[in-house]
Amino acid sequence: MAAHAAPTQPVAFQTHPSRYQHWKLSFEGDIATLVMAVQQHLGQREGYELKLNSYDIGVDIELADATQRIRFEHPEVRCVVVTGGLDRVFCAGANIVMLRTSTHGFKVNFCKYTNETRLYLEDASANSSVKFLAALNGTASGGGYELAIACDKILLADDRNSAVSYPEVPLLGVLPGTGGLTRITDKRKLRRDHCDAFSTVAEGIKGKRAVEWNLVDGIASLSKWNDTVKEWARKLADSVPQRASKGVELDEIRCEASADARRYKHVTLEFDRAQRVVELTIRAPDSGAKDAAEALAQGSGWWVLRAFRELDDALCNLRFNEPDIALVLLRAKGPAATWSKMDELLSGGGNWFTTETRHLVKRVLKRLDNTAKSLYAICDEGTTWCGTGLELALACDRTYVLDDEARPVTFAVTAANTGLFPMSNGLSRLQTRFLGTPAKVDEVLGTAGHFGAAQAHELGLDTYMPDAIDWDDELRLAIEERASFSPDAMTGMEANLRFAGPETMETKIFGRLSAWQNWIFQRPNAVGERGALTCYGTPNRPAFDVART
Amino acid sequence: MAAHAAPTQPVAFQTHPSRYQHWKLSFEGDIATLVMAVQQHLGQREGYELKLNSYDIGVDIELADATQRIRFEHPEVRCVVVTGGLDRVFCAGANIVMLRTSTHGFKVNFCKYTNETRLYLEDASANSSVKFLAALNGTASGGGYELAIACDKILLADDRNSAVSYPEVPLLGVLPGTGGLTRITDKRKLRRDHCDAFSTVAEGIKGKRAVEWNLVDGIASLSKWNDTVKEWARKLADSVPQRASKGVELDEIRCEASADARRYKHVTLEFDRAQRVVELTIRAPDSGAKDAAEALAQGSGWWVLRAFRELDDALCNLRFNEPDIALVLLRAKGPAATWSKMDELLSGGGNWFTTETRHLVKRVLKRLDNTAKSLYAICDEGTTWCGTGLELALACDRTYVLDDEARPVTFAVTAANTGLFPMSNGLSRLQTRFLGTPAKVDEVLGTAGHFGAAQAHELGLDTYMPDAIDWDDELRLAIEERASFSPDAMTGMEANLRFAGPETMETKIFGRLSAWQNWIFQRPNAVGERGALTCYGTPNRPAFDVART
Repeated sequence: MAAHAAPTQPVAFQTHPSRYQHWKLSFEGDIATLVMAVQQHLGQREGYELKLNSYDIGVDIELADATQRIRFEHPEVRCVVVTGGLDRVFCAGANIVMLRTSTHGFKVNFCKYTNETRLYLEDASANSSVKFLAALNGTASGGGYELAIACDKILLADDRNSAVSYPEVPLLGVLPGTGGLTRITDKRKLRRDHCDAFSTVAEGIKGKRAVEWNLVDGIASLSKWNDTVKEWARKLADSVPQRASKGVELDEIRCEASADARRYKHVTLEFDRAQRVVELTIRAPDSGAKDAAEALAQGSGWWVLRAFRELDDALCNLRFNEPDIALVLLRAKGPAATWSKMDELLSGGGNWFTTETRHLVKRVLKRLDNTAKSLYAICDEGTTWCGTGLELALACDRTYVLDDEARPVTFAVTAANTGLFPMSNGLSRLQTRFLGTPAKVDEVLGTAGHFGAAQAHELGLDTYMPDAIDWDDELRLAIEERASFSPDAMTGMEANLRFAGPETMETKIFGRLSAWQNWIFQRPNAVGERGALTCYGTPNRPAFDVART
Repeated sequence: MAAHAAPTQPVAFQTHPSRYQHWKLSFEGDIATLVMAVQQHLGQREGYELKLNSYDIGVDIELADATQRIRFEHPEVRCVVVTGGLDRVFCAGANIVMLRTSTHGFKVNFCKYTNETRLYLEDASANSSVKFLAALNGTASGGGYELAIACDKILLADDRNSAVSYPEVPLLGVLPGTGGLTRITDKRKLRRDHCDAFSTVAEGIKGKRAVEWNLVDGIASLSKWNDTVKEWARKLADSVPQRASKGVELDEIRCEASADARRYKHVTLEFDRAQRVVELTIRAPDSGAKDAAEALAQGSGWWVLRAFRELDDALCNLRFNEPDIALVLLRAKGPAATWSKMDELLSGGGNWFTTETRHLVKRVLKRLDNTAKSLYAICDEGTTWCGTGLELALACDRTYVLDDEARPVTFAVTAANTGLFPMSNGLSRLQTRFLGTPAKVDEVLGTAGHFGAAQAHELGLDTYMPDAIDWDDELRLAIEERASFSPDAMTGMEANLRFAGPETMETKIFGRLSAWQNWIFQRPNAVGERGALTCYGTPNRPAFDVART
């Protein structure tokens, strides 16, 4: 496989509708339309053509951006119609040649990102009164159908051509891994034998049988297509309240990047590449908006929104563009009063904008939970772990707290810690931490005011609390040790330890489906010289090692 | 890695206490003691030495056998003390050289089997009033500690030497994958940062800190060791009722094996190796025990117990010794009256023996669910899918029902289908099948008497129902197609589709932890020439590809 792998190009995650290459976003009243019309010669890197509305990371970044902008910039929207701009094909899924020529790590991160994007559609539906209609005016294959099942409703053209299909297993020897297998069992709730049959029929299923098996919600002939789409979109829009009439523009995230640093306004990353470590600091300004109305007036200048958009960009950048970084040393800084005020606005009734911002912070924290880097919270002099800031520490694998009265650390609990930002397992980070001792959750939540290292230790918020004498050595050793471990063992270990307790469709996608897909992405039967993924579209036929594992 | 892999030796799964090589099983009143004293030169195959009570599949087969025999042969037992027969070491976990020199497929099946064995300890505790005490009279590392956390209570020697540890990540670059990571988060419910720290400290944790972190339930000095073990065992035994005073001996499972067949009394396997298919038939006799007392009197001769012990042996054999078989064509036969009567006895109040048999059938059905072979239920002339037999069909990936009045098929619903044998996701197989349409469950359960193909179709029990004309061709194509798919894609797909809905600790172990472990078992950082697993115990130091995935 290494022979085929193309050099990875750095991925840039910021975009804007005015720069979209693959999607057309338009608005008519409370209904938005997202038309997928992928430009085949504008792949994120060279070496493949995005034929038949197949997609790569660049296409998905635009979809994620559009979903986010609809939530913030167009609160009047209550339904998004996702449809295709090509003839006969809605979307052919992830581009095969792109996958084949990507490194294992890129493939895995690509799948994770596209899974997050699809969950963001569902998050918008669940929390922002934005319903999605997949209007499949042509065949939806693989990732194309996986995008459709992330929508609330699916309408399929009934034209003897259009089908929905998962050709991954029969044609490529891999899984419909962008949530595909999990959503047919746990969201669409197909019968498992139908799931099995559907996932092995390359040509897919169309017409009435697609409805009978609950693969789609309805079909419409081409003569009635436009009217039916309109009618369904209207019905979806009418099923939810309108959030507001005027939105908030998301301005550009600016980052000053150098060889060893990325500096945003509120977030800074400093790389120590020899150690394979990055110091990531998020800093609250001296003051923020006083109330929800002022936050709305500040719009995307409200520091919370900007800081967490910056953090999101930083995390995506770390995943894709900094594969050799093993460990993130995370610090939260700035006045506790600013953090507390922010949490007050995020958790109070507020307005649609503070609600949207809360859900964005939630998504970024989940992105952190789901990032395959080791995370240490470094609670040393001048750091502030207050409410949402404390959530950042709770998202880390370990917390190192400096025990030195001369160099104090500040902790505080706010409403943000009561479950304002549920993890993908459905629990708060405190509930997950104290799964075995739920009384500790109440104890922490009952702690008023600011507190320091000693009380943080009493409350069980530290992992280790070295004193001034030991701090430097202990931290140095902990950092060196972490970077010395097998990166794969770290990824596997963290994927297991971070999500204690219950599972949800979301954790099943990342924990079960993705883990199996990653396994398959390593297997010669997929990526070896005669593997199915390698051979697809070439004159060679796959040759399998027939042993079942 | 291929260079290191030793030829696999066929694994035999039947044993008896009189032939145990690695465990000593003794009884004193209602307390049994299982002493692990692994004979280092008696590995299941050549090429490694089982030093320091490390284990291989042979050791685990004896443990599984002992657990099963205690349930059937010693219903007087209420507590099992699991302890070590070596000095200073309780158990060093799975043998590293064995793992290193095993094929990928063997490693994966070995881990799955050992996970099942540990779940059987927990199943005995939950359902048979048999409590397990891990009396760690020395260090329990890796799989050694994983065995301990499958027990109800853990007592650790407090002697400045004895620790519990997970050295897999720091020393081997793999995971504590025999349920280890899942049980510390979801059973022992350690704080996740403690889980993280514990899983990276090769030397482990001992004494008071092990208690504080809930890694063990208590410690005892050597001077008080024997008394404390006795006292704890007594307490555990007293916490549950005694099932009976006289057990049922499990006689030998006999199998006539030839190149292309395995014939047990009630179960037959016929291999078509060219097609990579096995036809597996389970047949009920003309009549069975009339009531629970007669069943008990028949003991291990009761056909149900024998048939499902045979099926269990057949499944283990398929997994380990028949890696090239892709597809199982499963048929249930015999008089519906025999199947119905059996279900009546299994589901009624009965006696301790019918209860034990029910749990055994449950475990074998789970073993079937969890077997990485494609499963088709073939409902053709003379097959009988009644109650427990119907569960076998529901465990299959697809059901082919012959639609031909001249060659009838028999279906019937019994109490066995109401949740008598829950799957590892906690649901019945009917609930799992009809997750999206729960009313169908009631409809099926409300169907009285025997019924044929047409009604089975109405009830949604078939996947495909070809008529007499199409049957042969359709089945032939379906079989050829299945065997033509990538075996890895099948394994991954089936692992996702078979367990819809909720997750449990059990499904997390097989779905999340095992999938990640399988991934790691493929990665050069573990099994490559300079991988950690390859280098361990050799003069070579591992060299990692540092990229995080």
